[in-house]
Amino acid sequence: MREFSQEFQSELLNLMKWRRDVRHFKTDPVPLDVLNDCLTAFETAPSVGLSEPWRIVNVTSKSARAAALANFEVANQEALSAYRDTQAETYASMKLTGMREAPVQFAIFCDEGTGKGHGLGARTMPEMRRYSVVAGIMNFWLAARAKGLGTGWVSILDPDQLRRDLDVPDNWSLVAYLCIGWPKEDTLTPELENIGWETRDPTLAHLLER
Amino acid sequence: MREFSQEFQSELLNLMKWRRDVRHFKTDPVPLDVLNDCLTAFETAPSVGLSEPWRIVNVTSKSARAAALANFEVANQEALSAYRDTQAETYASMKLTGMREAPVQFAIFCDEGTGKGHGLGARTMPEMRRYSVVAGIMNFWLAARAKGLGTGWVSILDPDQLRRDLDVPDNWSLVAYLCIGWPKEDTLTPELENIGWETRDPTLAHLLER
Repeated sequence: MREFSQEFQSELLNLMKWRRDVRHFKTDPVPLDVLNDCLTAFETAPSVGLSEPWRIVNVTSKSARAAALANFEVANQEALSAYRDTQAETYASMKLTGMREAPVQFAIFCDEGTGKGHGLGARTMPEMRRYSVVAGIMNFWLAARAKGLGTGWVSILDPDQLRRDLDVPDNWSLVAYLCIGWPKEDTLTPELENIGWETRDPTLAHLLER
Repeated sequence: MREFSQEFQSELLNLMKWRRDVRHFKTDPVPLDVLNDCLTAFETAPSVGLSEPWRIVNVTSKSARAAALANFEVANQEALSAYRDTQAETYASMKLTGMREAPVQFAIFCDEGTGKGHGLGARTMPEMRRYSVVAGIMNFWLAARAKGLGTGWVSILDPDQLRRDLDVPDNWSLVAYLCIGWPKEDTLTPELENIGWETRDPTLAHLLER
């Protein structure tokens, strides 16, 4: 059995605790080899039936970035209009995306039509393909943070519009839009907790037995 | 900035490479403190709007385990009948669940109706709540493997039936049924690859640019 030391186990938990959803980025570039190491981590993720349904679009062109940012701005304005009073004020005061600064931006899709894996494990739960993509994103996120690189997951977007704007197949569904870069700050506390939007529940609060 | 050593980064990638979807378990019990450490890792996961929508059901009773196993057996028989010839033979020959042996079994749900997070980030993509639950599962899976503990994700199930059998609220959706225990074997190669069901694609095969 390949073993991992106590020290490694403890540092792994520290890594998970120090991982944040980053929205404040420096504009310094990210070396390609650093990025490729993180993508290698992505691809070690489990996937249902070994279907590897992840499709990673490196969004680099001015036009694609502008379309993604415009998409966010419309969705964010609509979201804001659903809140009232103090909550609306708090929402409006938050920086919810690093899309203007982050040097690297990935749109991550799931290929719902892939024949890879021959449907194993996805018959009653086809959403397993999308969950496999999320598994890859988590590996990426942790590997990136271990290198000091921040990741921010933007979901305030119209997924169908982004799919059209990036000109990817109709049967690819958007799972995440990731902003990636060197973070401006480093903290153990989620920004949403610092700003008073929401708190974290105590450990094991959501465990029950049957 | 909290830094992580080169040695840790390299061992993290090893952990991801040695993580397997385990279906062959020893029946030895798992100490509660080991399990709780893994659940603590689960809860450090990102969640949309800090909604923490994960609901973890520790399936311990004979009746609940029997219902889950019966559910798998029906779904697995139906899945088998959709394959033909050699593929049907290969499918039938595979051990697709550790539900008969695994000492610990968790049914992991997403509370779709939680007010926590106040809907932030989940307006256009409500599936973000389920993705947050998957993020927790990945943290659990990696932390467990670092301790030598194997995890197997079963998705050959009727999710609505399992929800009813475990008597959880209607607006909880099943994300995963996890079998957890000490694995019988340890390998760098996915079982589906060993058995010839599917192969892994080369690195960065699914990266494109826009």
